[in-house]
Amino acid sequence: MEFTIRQIAVMLGGDVKGDDGSKINMLAKIQDAKPGQIAFLSNPKYEHFIYETKASAVIVKRGFAPKKEIVSSLILVDDPYSSFTVLLEEYHKLISFQKAGVEEPCFIGSDCTLGKAIYRGAFSYIGNNVTIGDNVKIYPHTFVGDNVVIGSNTILHPNVKLYGGTRVGNNCVIHSGAVLGSDGFGFAPQDDGTYKTIPQLGNVILEDNVTIGANTVIDCATLTGDSTVIHSGVKLDNLIQIAHNVEIGKNTVIAAQTGISGSTKVGENCVLAGQVGIAGHLVIANKTSVGAQAGISKSVKEEGQRLLGYPVLDVKEYFKSYAVFKQLPDLSARLKQLEDRVAKVNHEAK
Amino acid sequence: MEFTIRQIAVMLGGDVKGDDGSKINMLAKIQDAKPGQIAFLSNPKYEHFIYETKASAVIVKRGFAPKKEIVSSLILVDDPYSSFTVLLEEYHKLISFQKAGVEEPCFIGSDCTLGKAIYRGAFSYIGNNVTIGDNVKIYPHTFVGDNVVIGSNTILHPNVKLYGGTRVGNNCVIHSGAVLGSDGFGFAPQDDGTYKTIPQLGNVILEDNVTIGANTVIDCATLTGDSTVIHSGVKLDNLIQIAHNVEIGKNTVIAAQTGISGSTKVGENCVLAGQVGIAGHLVIANKTSVGAQAGISKSVKEEGQRLLGYPVLDVKEYFKSYAVFKQLPDLSARLKQLEDRVAKVNHEAK
Amino acid sequence: MEFTIRQIAVMLGGDVKGDDGSKINMLAKIQDAKPGQIAFLSNPKYEHFIYETKASAVIVKRGFAPKKEIVSSLILVDDPYSSFTVLLEEYHKLISFQKAGVEEPCFIGSDCTLGKAIYRGAFSYIGNNVTIGDNVKIYPHTFVGDNVVIGSNTILHPNVKLYGGTRVGNNCVIHSGAVLGSDGFGFAPQDDGTYKTIPQLGNVILEDNVTIGANTVIDCATLTGDSTVIHSGVKLDNLIQIAHNVEIGKNTVIAAQTGISGSTKVGENCVLAGQVGIAGHLVIANKTSVGAQAGISKSVKEEGQRLLGYPVLDVKEYFKSYAVFKQLPDLSARLKQLEDRVAKVNHEAK
Repeated sequence: MEFTIRQIAVMLGGDVKGDDGSKINMLAKIQDAKPGQIAFLSNPKYEHFIYETKASAVIVKRGFAPKKEIVSSLILVDDPYSSFTVLLEEYHKLISFQKAGVEEPCFIGSDCTLGKAIYRGAFSYIGNNVTIGDNVKIYPHTFVGDNVVIGSNTILHPNVKLYGGTRVGNNCVIHSGAVLGSDGFGFAPQDDGTYKTIPQLGNVILEDNVTIGANTVIDCATLTGDSTVIHSGVKLDNLIQIAHNVEIGKNTVIAAQTGISGSTKVGENCVLAGQVGIAGHLVIANKTSVGAQAGISKSVKEEGQRLLGYPVLDVKEYFKSYAVFKQLPDLSARLKQLEDRVAKVNHEAK
Repeated sequence: MEFTIRQIAVMLGGDVKGDDGSKINMLAKIQDAKPGQIAFLSNPKYEHFIYETKASAVIVKRGFAPKKEIVSSLILVDDPYSSFTVLLEEYHKLISFQKAGVEEPCFIGSDCTLGKAIYRGAFSYIGNNVTIGDNVKIYPHTFVGDNVVIGSNTILHPNVKLYGGTRVGNNCVIHSGAVLGSDGFGFAPQDDGTYKTIPQLGNVILEDNVTIGANTVIDCATLTGDSTVIHSGVKLDNLIQIAHNVEIGKNTVIAAQTGISGSTKVGENCVLAGQVGIAGHLVIANKTSVGAQAGISKSVKEEGQRLLGYPVLDVKEYFKSYAVFKQLPDLSARLKQLEDRVAKVNHEAK
Repeated sequence: MEFTIRQIAVMLGGDVKGDDGSKINMLAKIQDAKPGQIAFLSNPKYEHFIYETKASAVIVKRGFAPKKEIVSSLILVDDPYSSFTVLLEEYHKLISFQKAGVEEPCFIGSDCTLGKAIYRGAFSYIGNNVTIGDNVKIYPHTFVGDNVVIGSNTILHPNVKLYGGTRVGNNCVIHSGAVLGSDGFGFAPQDDGTYKTIPQLGNVILEDNVTIGANTVIDCATLTGDSTVIHSGVKLDNLIQIAHNVEIGKNTVIAAQTGISGSTKVGENCVLAGQVGIAGHLVIANKTSVGAQAGISKSVKEEGQRLLGYPVLDVKEYFKSYAVFKQLPDLSARLKQLEDRVAKVNHEAK
């Protein structure tokens, strides 16, 4: 990337205050930026950085007037953070892995339908009867089982594993080590104490615009025709467990190391923090927000709750109870003291 | 799969009530089934579905008499759920990955002993001095280190990693991304604050009929001749951590994201829920049942307990205490009030 | 390995008491050792084993005098445990994977700089402009993205994934399935309820002597020029989540399944047990010790604390409170009883 400040301002629909001819070659945080770099100032709390930064340009909100001298040119826009994100995206496109075509050796089975401009990395494996849309990137060591369908513009990073029958939508990103379609954890206890494996015959469906983090696992549904479904816009972080027949509603965001047990349906626009656990066969209402390490053992029926603890309580109630938990030894001692005093009073009263 | 209702009844040792010549080509849940599909009714709670289902056939318990009109033929058997599982298994065999032989390129070292009818997928890697039984399936991208021994009928899904010296029994299933035999986490603190790595020289042993979930990790034992042992019939879910020198007793079932620390011995027929943690060097009695997210820091000596909390309590006691935990702010306020009242009484008494 | 007891004593700078000509071919625990094997006795608690062991030699502390007859020769040293570790290391070197050179097929891009004596396993993938030091081992199925730099003597076990731009120091060990450099979990909420992906442009840096466990994930930093940094001597166990822009101070040890959220800085010489969670944007002081399953939601400012619970308390205070938690139903009943009694006293007093 190398643009003049003027070119960047045009790209962002902004106005320049100061020199607009200098070249910019990198994006940086305002406190770290060096000459030749561009930064942004969004939160007024960080205004002091603009008087110290060495950035050649800083993106600021229209109307911003510096209170001291600054060395940077200013690009004035309506929303500095959004504008900076636009620049990040442009930069990302420029530096992204631009490899295309087919690296050898790679493997492809029979009866596959491939779109245009697909990258297939070395040692990637595609089974039989697979359908892949346009501009899909399949990095090295990725496995695409039989009968898989993948939409357009989707990226499978190195070593993604899609078991047979998985369906992935458009514009999805799946990170390294993620496994989609492994067997659900279904075993029928037998009289002799052993367990019999219940065959897992369903699949996994990812709708459009879904991101799956590294080493996350999504099991297939149990019955043929059934699916574990991740609806459009869902973002899953790393090392998450999604059990068989789970459904995650659209635009729900789940942080790392959370686990959802079998057949549970999580609503839309929920936010689950890290290391949360949800038991099986539950329904979680839309817009539910769950704090880190919380455990949910019953369905959540009312929308928009904020929950914490095991089993979960309203987050404020949890903290109120926990505040007393910290004082329990004192509370216990005071109760004992009171009992003694009351016993004495009673005794004296007699 | 395409069988007549009559053929299926014969397979299950059941009797048909209604048309027995229609063709069945899929299994489904009774509430979802369409014509051409077969379902089952086991739990009387769901009887109402049988009057609405479009299934061509429903497997029911002998003696079942419909109270309303139904469109499905009935197959009467002793145990509808078991019979349905039999059908699932047959169907699974039919649709399972039937590839066999060797896909190229794949890698095999020297001095290996291979059984009959082994599938070796493209990009699979087998080291030196490896022994593999009959009918083993080694999917693409799977790594089998030097000196590994694998029993018959075992399936290694894509990208399983077996470090050198691992031993896997018969009829095991290992899912994608599982790692067996990585170094135990052993480091000796030095005077200068650094840690020195303690070499990990043992191995991992899986007995027969063990299932290992996707991205689960089992570390090798520390000393030569020592093993981390997963006994027969154990079922491990996804993303589980089994540390060095752990032993898991036969037919124990462990749900996703649980972690067992070094040298702990878990008994037979235990059930550990998800996200459970067990400290190192403990012994957990047979038939122990541990609830989700519980933490065990002491050995469990009595068999058959049900535990919850951190550190664990009897599950009922945990819930009794937790019920009061929720009311702690109220409890605390009442105690304060009582103190004030008693102080007043005392004062007045003086 | 086959050495005489005398040769081993010389190697350890120890003195032999008893036969020094017998051959030793394996290391074992004192309670399990057989003839031809060597064990050690460090903890006086286990002294009784020395009178039962069949080991040909036992390493003991100088000054140790057996109280009963023993069959083993003794090697007297200053620190038996350290000496045994030295032997383990020697043994480890002897049995370690000694493969070298290049196994085919493997993939390497353009403009790479490779040191001496590098092992590249079959199906390993090295991108463009990669720099690798001497004696590095790159096992099969490992992916090294564009512009990666790897120091000398580092081991990448099978199926390690290094995204483009990752930097790994000298003497590091990375286990199977570990992913370094995957996208940080950054999404900007939009007005319509969807999330927009914030491009993740930074990288991951591992300094020297770092160990990364199997299936652990370390995300890249958000901005170009920024890094998620794992300082020298850090040891990470399996299945750990390290989010974007995190920094882990030198010689900190983290047990399995722990997760650190974005931008948090963990100090030096900390010890985090398993399944710990730390929220984002925090600073954790040096020498902090955190118990299993604890959750940290605020910065830890004072060094050397031992913490437990959610949110964390001092470990002793946590256990004191938890001791009362167990008795809460009793406490609650006693409070009720006392209220009744006081009400009665008050009533009588009127």
